Amino acid sequence: MPPGSGSGSARSAPDRLLAVLAAFDHDHPALTLTDIGRRAGLTLTTAHRLVGALTEWGALERDASGIYHVGLRLWELAALAPRGLALRQIALPYLEDLYEATHENVQLAVRDGDEVVYIEWLSGRSAVGVHIRVGGRWPLHATGVGLALLAHDDPASQEVYCQSPLTPFTPYTIADAPRLRRVLAEVRRTGVAVSSRQVTEDALSVAAPVRGPGGAVVAAVSVVVPQAGAQVPVLTPAVRVAARGISRALGWQPDEPRRGSLIPGRGTTTP
Amino acid sequence: MPPGSGSGSARSAPDRLLAVLAAFDHDHPALTLTDIGRRAGLTLTTAHRLVGALTEWGALERDASGIYHVGLRLWELAALAPRGLALRQIALPYLEDLYEATHENVQLAVRDGDEVVYIEWLSGRSAVGVHIRVGGRWPLHATGVGLALLAHDDPASQEVYCQSPLTPFTPYTIADAPRLRRVLAEVRRTGVAVSSRQVTEDALSVAAPVRGPGGAVVAAVSVVVPQAGAQVPVLTPAVRVAARGISRALGWQPDEPRRGSLIPGRGTTTP
Repeated sequence: MPPGSGSGSARSAPDRLLAVLAAFDHDHPALTLTDIGRRAGLTLTTAHRLVGALTEWGALERDASGIYHVGLRLWELAALAPRGLALRQIALPYLEDLYEATHENVQLAVRDGDEVVYIEWLSGRSAVGVHIRVGGRWPLHATGVGLALLAHDDPASQEVYCQSPLTPFTPYTIADAPRLRRVLAEVRRTGVAVSSRQVTEDALSVAAPVRGPGGAVVAAVSVVVPQAGAQVPVLTPAVRVAARGISRALGWQPDEPRRGSLIPGRGTTTP
Repeated sequence: MPPGSGSGSARSAPDRLLAVLAAFDHDHPALTLTDIGRRAGLTLTTAHRLVGALTEWGALERDASGIYHVGLRLWELAALAPRGLALRQIALPYLEDLYEATHENVQLAVRDGDEVVYIEWLSGRSAVGVHIRVGGRWPLHATGVGLALLAHDDPASQEVYCQSPLTPFTPYTIADAPRLRRVLAEVRRTGVAVSSRQVTEDALSVAAPVRGPGGAVVAAVSVVVPQAGAQVPVLTPAVRVAARGISRALGWQPDEPRRGSLIPGRGTTTP
């Protein structure tokens, strides 16, 4: 066995390479070779070889001071993710319209397991400080987008989530199953999810589901505002209109609304 | 040698895994396992093993019909790229302002080798059809953003590019070294790059360089409009202001502008 290959030898080659990529996260966006080796559980020799291959390919970039960052090639690849940039590109005009109408923080999120991942976020410059970011994650039960996504999951999966441990972030976070069940029923009834002071004590979000071509909920859009003075009845129609606009752009076709006939049939008399 | 490992055996393990990722591009965003194996030059057995590892990690996602797509985990990782989402997040408010002021296509691009890569693109809904996309690439000499980036490269590298083959896309594309040198000098003199009918015959772009903390040009911002009736003198200040705004947000500090004293010194007399 060559020196330095020991620590990684029990793991497969793909696992070791992916461990190098996984060494980078929001708290560690810039790493030295030594950092990467330690965080990936690899010897310096193995880390050097794998980082070299990733850098040559463009997945990592080395700056003038020898620090490694995530590279442009991964950005280009990520642009192909149907639940990432591709969805965001379709949604962006509608998110901009929602921002124009409210001048508050506007978000688009998708579900990944028991969490939401934010794939777009337009910042209101005077808006409440928001503890989220593009690529950031939160559990479903705390956020407006998470509740909107969870409420439209199949009933059995919803029940599994309701019975799982519900981490509280503030005294207002939904932390018990009966309350979560009631809130999810309310979300389905009203078409919007409201998360008030459940992530931070100063913020409130109003979210609505985004549907794909077949009608399945694929994402959620929300507005986050300061909780003090939040006008939920004013925000609700704007968020719903934006969510329906994105859904239509994705190919969703709503059921025909019932309406009174505007064209009198033959043989009818008009007053 | 185990069956099926033959075709990839001459390449290193990292190379084979990266070849699977590289099988996905703009023209091939959704692939079957067989497609992936063929495009990556791997046997089905090897492709199956590597795709499995990438899917488990989240770099790929398999849909209900068994087709593979780029996964959300790569999107999250790409959000850490300083020249991708991170730059775009800082620039977005200024790009939105430029869009509001012009209602035309607005782009942000960075350089990668001899090409520009578009990392943001806001579409004017009534604007000219533009043959670019987020994650898309064009050679430096054809586009406004490319000319803005090239003009601020060091002189020796510029000369190397000038003497390389310059692909024409329309009869108006800059395709000879003397003309490219003259255009680059003009870009440095005026602070903006104009590409008229050089990518498609109906479009014109006005671009300006974006500077990082040390003053180096790190990106370029542009507006693309229909060539017929384009008002370059009107677009120029808007594009320059947006580019300077992004530069300041990145930490760039301009030299103090020279200005006449507005406050009369002691002992001076005002008329």
